[in-house]
Amino acid sequence: MNTQQTQTKIVNGVNVTQLFETIDSIKENGEIAKFNFRAQNKWKGGTVNQTTVSDYSGACQTFTRSKPHVFIKDEPPVLLGKDIGANPVEYLLAGLAGCITTSLVAHAAAKGIKIDSIESTLEGDIDLHGLLQLDDTNPGYQGINISFKIESDASDETLQELIELAKKASPVANTVSRPTPVNVKLTK
Amino acid sequence: MNTQQTQTKIVNGVNVTQLFETIDSIKENGEIAKFNFRAQNKWKGGTVNQTTVSDYSGACQTFTRSKPHVFIKDEPPVLLGKDIGANPVEYLLAGLAGCITTSLVAHAAAKGIKIDSIESTLEGDIDLHGLLQLDDTNPGYQGINISFKIESDASDETLQELIELAKKASPVANTVSRPTPVNVKLTK
Repeated sequence: MNTQQTQTKIVNGVNVTQLFETIDSIKENGEIAKFNFRAQNKWKGGTVNQTTVSDYSGACQTFTRSKPHVFIKDEPPVLLGKDIGANPVEYLLAGLAGCITTSLVAHAAAKGIKIDSIESTLEGDIDLHGLLQLDDTNPGYQGINISFKIESDASDETLQELIELAKKASPVANTVSRPTPVNVKLTK
Repeated sequence: MNTQQTQTKIVNGVNVTQLFETIDSIKENGEIAKFNFRAQNKWKGGTVNQTTVSDYSGACQTFTRSKPHVFIKDEPPVLLGKDIGANPVEYLLAGLAGCITTSLVAHAAAKGIKIDSIESTLEGDIDLHGLLQLDDTNPGYQGINISFKIESDASDETLQELIELAKKASPVANTVSRPTPVNVKLTK
């Protein structure tokens, strides 16, 4: 912002110029860093739900998408559904996969580390005793394991540091790995 | 399973007969309750990721969908993306919305409580200081607030108990609200 540089630097497809401008702006005014994300959900009967995400707030503004993103969630037949959409615990994996990968790519870009490709697999165990409240088993994932296959000229040591940094900085990984309050209430 | 009843009982669109048969089967053989969910993710450059969910294991079997579910995640322009998909923290809200609602509907069905409609809004704050590692702020949601609007003949007291039970039993809500380990590793 305070340089005369006009050229935009892109690393890993990330606009590093805009990234550093954002960081500078946040350092000047911390309010810019405050974001609020929201979703509206409508139960469609049985195990089917439709969620819409449209507006969000951040950088002291509210943004409304011209075309909202809409998701259908269901359960597979073995869990009483018809599989017309992925199930909610798979959505959680999808969110985690995207978040930790983008965190990795952006932090690598900021450090000038070029990444050629990233593929990952995520998996986790769930015991239905919890969901069905048959005993005190945790209903959620016992843990989530992510394996990354990364093509890059960077050393394995650097890539190992990057995946740890990506996890530490990722909003979804952080939400999952610490006890994040979920507050429910009835409204009219 | 051990009755001669052939009529299927449906409440809230949930096959309660199958639900109670599943519970009976799990009480006979706890292994049936063990599920494993997984996802494959491919980075598509910049802030874009594509996640595919296909197979899963449960009830002592592995199931492979004939048509996998595929998700595109991106970031909005203010977060360096082009918004070709919802962002990962919005996917987390979508998963949470579906999970807690299906948990509510299924537990209500098991109790014989008829639900006519459920709409909900979810929202949570995120401070970018965490993602950008500018200080020790948690990168994730500070908390997630869910408001439910439910149409039912049940009393408000019953509905209040139901939303608390739904939260307690929901795999995604449980994964978020307790410290769930996220383990990352590099593979070749």
